[in-house]
Formats: sequence, C-alpha cells, structure tokens
Amino acid sequence: MTESWATSAFGTDLHLDLKGPGLRASLMDALRDAVRTGRLVSGTRLPSSRSLAVDLGIARNTVADAYAELVAEGWLSAQQGSGTRVATRAVPRPVAPTAVPAPPSGRRLALSLVPGSPDLAEFPRREWLAASRRALTAAPNDAFGCGDALGRVELRTAVADYLARARGVYADPGHVVICSGFHHGLMLMAQVLVGRGVRAVAVEDYGLDGHRDLLAGAGLRTPPVAVDGRGTCTDDLADLPDVGAVLMTPSHQYPTGVALHPERRAAAVGWARATGGLILEDDYDGEFRYDRQPVGALQGLDPDRVVYFGTASKPLATGLRLGWMVLPAALVAEIVAAKGHADWMSSSLEQLTLAEFIASGAYERHVRSMRLRYRRRRDQLVAELARRVPGIRVTGIAAGLHAVLELPAGTEASVVEAAAHNGLAVTGMAQFRGAARVSGAVAPAPDALVVGYATPSDSAWAGALDALCGVLPQAR
Amino acid sequence: MTESWATSAFGTDLHLDLKGPGLRASLMDALRDAVRTGRLVSGTRLPSSRSLAVDLGIARNTVADAYAELVAEGWLSAQQGSGTRVATRAVPRPVAPTAVPAPPSGRRLALSLVPGSPDLAEFPRREWLAASRRALTAAPNDAFGCGDALGRVELRTAVADYLARARGVYADPGHVVICSGFHHGLMLMAQVLVGRGVRAVAVEDYGLDGHRDLLAGAGLRTPPVAVDGRGTCTDDLADLPDVGAVLMTPSHQYPTGVALHPERRAAAVGWARATGGLILEDDYDGEFRYDRQPVGALQGLDPDRVVYFGTASKPLATGLRLGWMVLPAALVAEIVAAKGHADWMSSSLEQLTLAEFIASGAYERHVRSMRLRYRRRRDQLVAELARRVPGIRVTGIAAGLHAVLELPAGTEASVVEAAAHNGLAVTGMAQFRGAARVSGAVAPAPDALVVGYATPSDSAWAGALDALCGVLPQAR
Repeated sequence: MTESWATSAFGTDLHLDLKGPGLRASLMDALRDAVRTGRLVSGTRLPSSRSLAVDLGIARNTVADAYAELVAEGWLSAQQGSGTRVATRAVPRPVAPTAVPAPPSGRRLALSLVPGSPDLAEFPRREWLAASRRALTAAPNDAFGCGDALGRVELRTAVADYLARARGVYADPGHVVICSGFHHGLMLMAQVLVGRGVRAVAVEDYGLDGHRDLLAGAGLRTPPVAVDGRGTCTDDLADLPDVGAVLMTPSHQYPTGVALHPERRAAAVGWARATGGLILEDDYDGEFRYDRQPVGALQGLDPDRVVYFGTASKPLATGLRLGWMVLPAALVAEIVAAKGHADWMSSSLEQLTLAEFIASGAYERHVRSMRLRYRRRRDQLVAELARRVPGIRVTGIAAGLHAVLELPAGTEASVVEAAAHNGLAVTGMAQFRGAARVSGAVAPAPDALVVGYATPSDSAWAGALDALCGVLPQAR
Repeated sequence: MTESWATSAFGTDLHLDLKGPGLRASLMDALRDAVRTGRLVSGTRLPSSRSLAVDLGIARNTVADAYAELVAEGWLSAQQGSGTRVATRAVPRPVAPTAVPAPPSGRRLALSLVPGSPDLAEFPRREWLAASRRALTAAPNDAFGCGDALGRVELRTAVADYLARARGVYADPGHVVICSGFHHGLMLMAQVLVGRGVRAVAVEDYGLDGHRDLLAGAGLRTPPVAVDGRGTCTDDLADLPDVGAVLMTPSHQYPTGVALHPERRAAAVGWARATGGLILEDDYDGEFRYDRQPVGALQGLDPDRVVYFGTASKPLATGLRLGWMVLPAALVAEIVAAKGHADWMSSSLEQLTLAEFIASGAYERHVRSMRLRYRRRRDQLVAELARRVPGIRVTGIAAGLHAVLELPAGTEASVVEAAAHNGLAVTGMAQFRGAARVSGAVAPAPDALVVGYATPSDSAWAGALDALCGVLPQAR
C-alpha cells in the first residue's frame, strides 16, 4: 500500500517540475497542499523518503530534505520508530466554504421602498470612468502614496467650491476633511467632543438609531430634542444644560422631511453662540429640493459654531464611501489627530476621480438630472396615492428622496408586515423614534411609513408603487 | 452715501436675474455672499428696502421680503429705529485660506530612502484603468450600494485564490474580510481581543511604534519579544503568561529583514495551540522574495490560530487603502461586529477594480515585474556599498523593499543628520526599538540604517544612492 501511495495521493494533480532546482520546493508545496485541502489527514503516515523517491523518480535526499523542512514548519511530525506523519492539527479544516452572513432581512424582498438609498441603477458609469481616466492620467506620483490626513487637496478644493456654490457653505479647503462617509465623520467628531470634556450630544427625535448608537458608543449621552411641523424644537436646547452639541438635519429633517423654520435656524445658532455649543449639521440630501430655492446650509450662518457633514452617498452612490466635513478652524487639528492612522483615509485614486468629476461639472449635471428624475417619482407617488388611497396624507415631500405617509393609528406594524408578505420592504416611522424610546419619554410615534421613492430602479418602480398602494388602508 | 451703496457693495458682481421668480432668492444669495466673503462686515447698516429697490429697479416688497428672511436666518438683524444691519458674528471670518498642516518633516527632503513605500512612479496606471473599466462595466447595480460587511465577494474570492497560490494561505472567501489597510485590520482585531478579555498582545522588538501605539490605544499592554538572527524569539512567549496574541512579521521581520526560522515557526504555532493564543501575522511584503522560493505564510500551518493580514499597499500603492484579513472561522462574526458601521468599508468600485486586476492576472504580472526591478535596486545598493564603503555590512536583503546597513557604534544619529543635511531622508534603527524603550528593558539598539530602496523613482535612485554612500562612515 505504501508503494501506491504516491500515485494515489498525488496522482494526476502533482505537477512536479522534475528538472531544475525547484524540485524540493515543488514537492513541499504539493505536500502542504495535500495537507491543507484534507487529502492527507492528520496522523496519516507518509511513505519513507526512499519509497517516495523511487515512486517519483527523484533523489532520496530531495525527499528527505523536504520532509525535514516540513517537520520544522509544523506540517509533518517525525518520531523515532514511527516514521513521518501528517501533524495533528488543533481543529479539522472545514471543507465546504463557510456561508457569508446574510444581508439584513429587508434586502431579501424583491421590491424595496426602504429609505436611504439613491437609485443605484442610475450611477453614471460612463462619466465616472471618464473622470477616473482623466484623474489617473494627470495624477502626480504622490497620489499613489499615503497622502494628506485631511484628504487630497484636489478633492477638498472641489468640494469647497461646490458647497459654497450649491449649499451656501462657507468652506475653505483647509477646513475640509475627507472621510469615508457620515458615520466616519461623526465618529471622529464624537472622539473630539469626548476629548474636550463634552458629556452629551442632543439628537433629533425622530432620527436614526445608528447615529445615536455611535455617539453612545463613544461615551456620550444622547438626550432627544423633539421635532414638530417647523422642524427641530431648538428652543428646547436651553433646557438641556450639559449638552455640548446637537446633531441636526436642518435642510430636510430625517425622516419627517420638514425644513427647519428660519426662526429656529437663528435660534439654533443663537444657542450655540450663547453656550459655546456646536451644531453638527447632517446635510445628507440637501441637493434634492424640488419646489423652491434650496434651503442653504445652516453652516453659512456661523461657520465657527457649525460642523457641516456632506456626502456623495445620496447624489452618487453609497458604495463610493466618500464624505466630507467642513470644520470650524479651531477643530481641524483635533479632527486630524482623531483621524490618526493613515488607514482611515479613503482611496486617493477615488478621491481624485471625485475631484475631477466635481470640477468638470459632471457632478452637478448628474444631480440636476437625478433631481428631475426623483421629482417625477415623487409626483407619481403623490398622484397614485391620491387616486388609489385618496384619504392618505403625504408629507415631507418638498425635498429629498423619501416621503412620509401618515397612517391610521394602530395600523403601521400590520402595513409593514402586509407589504413584506407581498414582497415589498417598507419602513415604519416607529423605527425612527429611538431616542424617546431609550430615554423613556414621550407618547408613541404617530403611525406612518417612511417611503424611499428613490430606491427602486426604473424597472422596479411601477411594481413597488403598485404593491405599496395595495397594502395601504383606505381612509375611514 | 446710502444711495450709492447698492452699486458700491454689489457693483459689478451682483448677477441679479431681474426677470422671473428667482429675483428674491438671487438677492438673498447675493447678500449672503457679500456677508460671507466679508464685503459686508458685521454691523454695517443696509440701505432701506425702498432705496435698494430703487437702485436695483425692482419691487420694494421683494427687497423687504429678502431682508426679513435673512433676519430670520440670522444673517441680518433688524432693530426698531436703527434699520437693518449685518448681524454680529461670533468670530470674524478668516480671509486667507488656512494653511494645511505640513507633512512629516522627512517628506520635505528632495531624496528619500525611508522604508515603507513602493516606487509610486511604477503604479500601473494603464492596467489599473483597464481593470476599472472592465469592473465598472460588468458591475451589478448593487455594487454602488453599501454592500457586504465582509467586503465585495468578488474581491474576497480573488484574494483567497491569490493567497492560496502565492502565499500558501488557507483562505476561504467567507473568512476573508476586506479592510482599508493593516492599521484598520489591526484596530478591528484589537477591539475583538479586548472584547474577549485579552489584556496583552506581545509585539516584536524591533517593530513599528504605530502598531504598538494602536494596540495600546485599544487598552492592551504590549510586552516586547526580542528579535535575533533567526527572527522572533518565540520561545520567550512562554514567559509572558497573560499574553493572548502575538503580532509578528514571520516572512520578513520588520525592520531587521530576517525570515523566521522553521523551528520557530513551529514553536509559534505550538505556543498558540498550547495557550489558546492567536498569532497576528503581518505579511506586509511577502510577495517580494529574491533569492529562493518564497517563505509561505505562517497561516497555512494553522488557520485556526493565525490571523493573516495582507495588503495591496506594497505591491501596488499605499493610496489604494485596501487590505485583507484571513480569519479563523470563529472570529469572523466578531470582526464583522467590530467593523460595525458601513462607513468603515472601502469603496466598492475600488474593490471590484482590484478584484478584476487580480483575477485577470495583472496583479501577479505587476508583482513579478516589480520583483525584478526591486531586486536590481537591491543588487545595485549592495554593489555600490561594497565599492564605496567596503567595510559596511548589509543584512535582511533576501526579501522585501528595504535593507539594514550596520553602522559603527555611536554613529547612527549623526549619519541620519548628515544625510538630511544633504537632502536625503533616511531612517535609523533606533526608531524601531520602541517596545524595549517603553518597557524600560534592554540595551540600546545597535546602530544601523533601515534603507528603503524601493522608495525613490528611477530618476531619483542614482542620486539617492550616491547621497547615501557619501554620508556613510568608512569602516575602521
């Protein structure tokens, strides 16, 4: 049996280079491979170096050397009198690939109106590639190195120009820091705040659990501030004496869709100035305003008290993982220190591509085209609801990529469930009431759906809209 | 004076669209802009709405509405009897852009032999763009979404295949996690270890301060393990009873350049099995081995006790910010939980491009071509040193992108200084002796330079080599 071992174990798939100096190494590779893939299991006794050498028609020393080195490396074990065996491994190798964790369950449904995603089918592949080609061709060699902790200056400059033009942001490229998205920026900011001795950051209620969790994870309390028809109740900030900052979505409150009332904008800045607090302005979809002039960013009111967060996720693609913060001058050094290791930086090639994409005007062209497209979607949503579910009230639709559909009390959970049953993922308002839930305050959220009308591709849109109308309760 | 104000303040650069519905908005924009850029400073009294309306030839109500809204937004203030003024801001706007923090001083020098960087001039721009075009054209729409927490499956599969082939790594795509480089991976690992109750991670001494600092920042102690001519002294691990993991560079110790002796490879795995500890294998330049078969990754010996870290930084470009970990099955869920927010993920477009770059064979072609190039550099370094500084000993040159030049005792600091004086950045060995320095143990490092011969571009190489030879002390 030992005689036939070499053939049976190595058989057809041992590609030994029988000439040349690589023979011993090839043999070692083949043996390692056989152990690794489980063809040779723990404890298997190997043929003697002499028999294997004969089988393979090579010098005995070559085999003996290979065995010795593999013993030293721990693949094989050799014991006086018992020959050479495959070493015992702590745990047997899995043979089948381990399943990758499944995506969140909502993703599994055929149709989705879950908010938070642009229409991914509309990513401007051709224009992006063209920008990438121009950027990569023109890039200095140092673009391939680890670069500037603030981010590539080309991108910071393009972003600063764009924000000043489109969002009324007072942005100096030296105060812009590129990050890998809003969460990254918020995490850096939380670190800086904790470092400054801040204990609490107020958050809007309604809002995203993920943001609150991130702040809480950094050691900050997150007292909720109520949201009403004029946006965040900024007057309430004065009642939260130890709050060092407030996280807000003034241009388009998430998820209610209200724009902060001008008086409250002024009040927020007034609070920040009076208390030395900071406003963390999450301008997640400020580009998409349909019915009137865009609401300028709050940051323009007082760049020294507002930290502005923007992102390419909604206008372009979440997958790019590129966002930016515009910082008060006094915070730049602290944020860079928090950013720390070079690894947290985004790909410099991707940064240069986005810089070129913005500077060439392609970004704003894309935003304009998407704005028309999303506005059409919104109008279709409103019209179809009016036709098929006439009593329903739709709010928060002046801007952004989502709308709020008010539901009769007590129906939200069953609507979400019925939609899922029909293959449509939708999100109930309850999900955004985390701050109050955690703090134990406040009445339950009024029943509503938060409908992301940008999420489906064109081909899925009609089906999603139809499925939505089919599960909504008729007004009484 | 009020009469001429509109002209002088707005003069030539107020581009009012005097027809159409956007007039009030344009006026507001122009006023905001004038405040933002400092043309209108705090406290400046504005003309009455009537006089400005006359000046501009527009309706008085339009001006009055614009004023009122800007007051509400906080740009202007209105007080009974004192008219409308530019609101007081907390801090005056800076006019000149703030300087961006300077890069580390070494970077300023014209020539550099600082280790840690590949030759950035050799980044394969054309091949990368071609891969990017193929990847982006073929990408499914969901590639532009936020994707899989482990990283794109295309890249994990390409990496797993490549590592099995080139590095002897036992890699299942389901156990590969894409990260934005080694630091990111190590940070995730540190979080997981802390979560498991580990208090200390042993580090090689010599090693990089940044790695030790990162572990320490996560709350771990970092006892040093000595390095000698056979690599890390793995037998010493047994003397560190509360160490839950050891961070190692077995294929090419950084910076000494020694490959871990086969017996010590086995000893390291033996320690991990006996104690339940983990080996964190930093395979930062395993692709670049010149004089014999590559040393396989330690991970292949026991994928359940070794966490493998690899990166595209050395073979391709640091600026890509793409690395990977190959995890024991039991760690995957914990690492994904530590990764947490989607933002820590790398650009999915870049991941797809790298996947295509690897799968098409371009990666290995590039590695082979760079291996030849770096090997030539290394040979030139050794030859030139032998010719011009005959007594000097060069070690650690069997692999990698750097060499160690031993110096007469007491000369290291002055050589580094003399080099800087001549415009050449070099790194002394003392910089890598942090662990012992911190722990207060051990004799001072023997004097040496760590020379990164891959760093200069071809055009700078001869000059760097010449400058280096010029400052090295002749052997006595």
